[in-house]
Amino acid sequence: MQFDETPIGAYKYELDTPILLIDLDLMESNIAKMADFFRSVNANLRPHTKTHKTPIIAHKQIDASAIGVTCAKLGEAEVMVNSGIKQVLIANEIITPLKIEKLTSLARHADLIVAVDDEDNVEHLSKSAFNKGVNLKVLVEVDIGMKRCGVEPGEPALKLAHKIEKSKNLTFAGLMGYEGHTVTIPDFDKRKYETEKSMALLVETKDLIERSGLRVEIMSGGGTGTYNITGKIPEMTEIQAGSYVVMDAYYKNVVNEFDCALTILSTVISRPNKTTAIIDAGIKTMTKEFGLPLVKGIEGVKLTRLSEEHGNLDVSKSEIDLKRGDKIELIPTHCCTTINLHDKFYGIRNDRLETIWDIEGRGKVR
Amino acid sequence: MQFDETPIGAYKYELDTPILLIDLDLMESNIAKMADFFRSVNANLRPHTKTHKTPIIAHKQIDASAIGVTCAKLGEAEVMVNSGIKQVLIANEIITPLKIEKLTSLARHADLIVAVDDEDNVEHLSKSAFNKGVNLKVLVEVDIGMKRCGVEPGEPALKLAHKIEKSKNLTFAGLMGYEGHTVTIPDFDKRKYETEKSMALLVETKDLIERSGLRVEIMSGGGTGTYNITGKIPEMTEIQAGSYVVMDAYYKNVVNEFDCALTILSTVISRPNKTTAIIDAGIKTMTKEFGLPLVKGIEGVKLTRLSEEHGNLDVSKSEIDLKRGDKIELIPTHCCTTINLHDKFYGIRNDRLETIWDIEGRGKVR
Repeated sequence: MQFDETPIGAYKYELDTPILLIDLDLMESNIAKMADFFRSVNANLRPHTKTHKTPIIAHKQIDASAIGVTCAKLGEAEVMVNSGIKQVLIANEIITPLKIEKLTSLARHADLIVAVDDEDNVEHLSKSAFNKGVNLKVLVEVDIGMKRCGVEPGEPALKLAHKIEKSKNLTFAGLMGYEGHTVTIPDFDKRKYETEKSMALLVETKDLIERSGLRVEIMSGGGTGTYNITGKIPEMTEIQAGSYVVMDAYYKNVVNEFDCALTILSTVISRPNKTTAIIDAGIKTMTKEFGLPLVKGIEGVKLTRLSEEHGNLDVSKSEIDLKRGDKIELIPTHCCTTINLHDKFYGIRNDRLETIWDIEGRGKVR
Repeated sequence: MQFDETPIGAYKYELDTPILLIDLDLMESNIAKMADFFRSVNANLRPHTKTHKTPIIAHKQIDASAIGVTCAKLGEAEVMVNSGIKQVLIANEIITPLKIEKLTSLARHADLIVAVDDEDNVEHLSKSAFNKGVNLKVLVEVDIGMKRCGVEPGEPALKLAHKIEKSKNLTFAGLMGYEGHTVTIPDFDKRKYETEKSMALLVETKDLIERSGLRVEIMSGGGTGTYNITGKIPEMTEIQAGSYVVMDAYYKNVVNEFDCALTILSTVISRPNKTTAIIDAGIKTMTKEFGLPLVKGIEGVKLTRLSEEHGNLDVSKSEIDLKRGDKIELIPTHCCTTINLHDKFYGIRNDRLETIWDIEGRGKVR
């Protein structure tokens, strides 16, 4: 028996902890549900790999009809291209000379789309693409209210679009606007109102650019919280939802139709008193910026504190008497940052270990 | 020129970003300062590797007179033992059968000390150590007010000590009590008062156990915030401070005599308006549970938001006009969890890349 790699077929509670489990049935059901939705609208799904960072999951999304992937960083895009994925949007600005050289080299192996919000950056991308004889598709990122990257809607976007179109080895491909400030508004009607207000800025900018004679082929935006709002806007061509594939306890409050496929399996390592149990997982195992993870499947047990390597459980209202060595599962509140702490997904079906997947994009922040 | 590994000797602002820099002069000075302190007291330093997770740094601490290392998890201890370190305290309970087997196997290659707070666990450790013909030193963990693992001071600790002493292949080595609830109290006098109150519980427990005829060889506790309080208590034999080696902006407010050797080098990727600059580093690059990181060396620039892959800077009061492509350095607020996000330290001296170190313990949560 090996110690580090647990045998395929093992019962999940036999696995060494803490460990990142993914329920394969639930993940597959999430992928299928999302694919179903996109059969009913104009837009396509181009799922964001910043959530799972794992090639095989991206391939499953594409098999279910996604048109490619969206990546946050160049390093993530390299992982996906190396796994054979050809249609890759990097939903970010690539600025430094070193990264631009890597980007245009990567363009020899895939159809890359990249975001820009600056004229100088357009010139740098064009020069590098020209020197290597590759073509890059370029989206103008428009700030539609999130106040992060992006040019203002309207004239600034129009100006940049024409600059791109005139640049050698670049193709102006369309617009990107991420309504990140609306995707987690809990009330659906309010979320819909704020999302449509934001996306109208992108649509108006599209109209302005098309009236000037340029074609806006791609209109990209959306997240898991707005896939069924932004995804229904007729002008939108692709949606970047990512979290839906595994979900988390925080997003579940916003979009209930997807299931939480991700859990942290942990072990009770101490029972210092009647009301407290200590587990072997802390903030190096699951993040808490969206709140403390939830305990799965045990009534009355609540996580009350996470330090670096430990979690404190209040078991005073527990239905069962947790003992040292007992295993518990926790549902993360932020799947994207929690997955980024782990090297592997342990794929579970019917409570047995079916497969182990390398999270190849973990830590690819460059 | 390689793209992923930057040439030794490169100017630090040439490095691809975001990247984890460690200032070697400052780190070496922190190690020397701490070693100086421990020449003046009874206690020795057994630095915690949960901060840096990097063998070469542990060896530098030992070269400067540390008596071994303290590890949070078995996986971290394995990394340190594999690097040749022989004196390893695992300041945690090892509960599951699989981990106990790994622990006693590891004991063939190093002198291991492990914490316990439970009689059943003592029996399990003893049985496994006996079967393998190895010896384990065991500390009784006492809860001295942090309310995490550990037995109550006094009789419960005494009882457990005798249980250990009577167990085959185990040696009762002493007591461990971590005053984690006092280490970051900003006011020194209050911190000293609360720390001494907590540690008195450990000292009283030692006296009780010694009156019963057992020798308490090791008294282990302390952190970076209490090294010069707990470290001066005559009964204490070793201190587990970890953060001092690189420090962070949060701990710097508590213990000013060590320098922040750790920074995240980041690039401005967007200047959407006059007051805002966007950088290429977010919470997948630096953690924020102790507050937002600080901008280093540029007056008037402040980090105002961190999303997953981006940071927003308020530059409205900046002394210089930051442009796209400009590099900035940020000082993390929690060194331990920030380092755990990265694969490598990039060691800088006189602004040049001197060395690259694998953070081999990163992600070793098991």
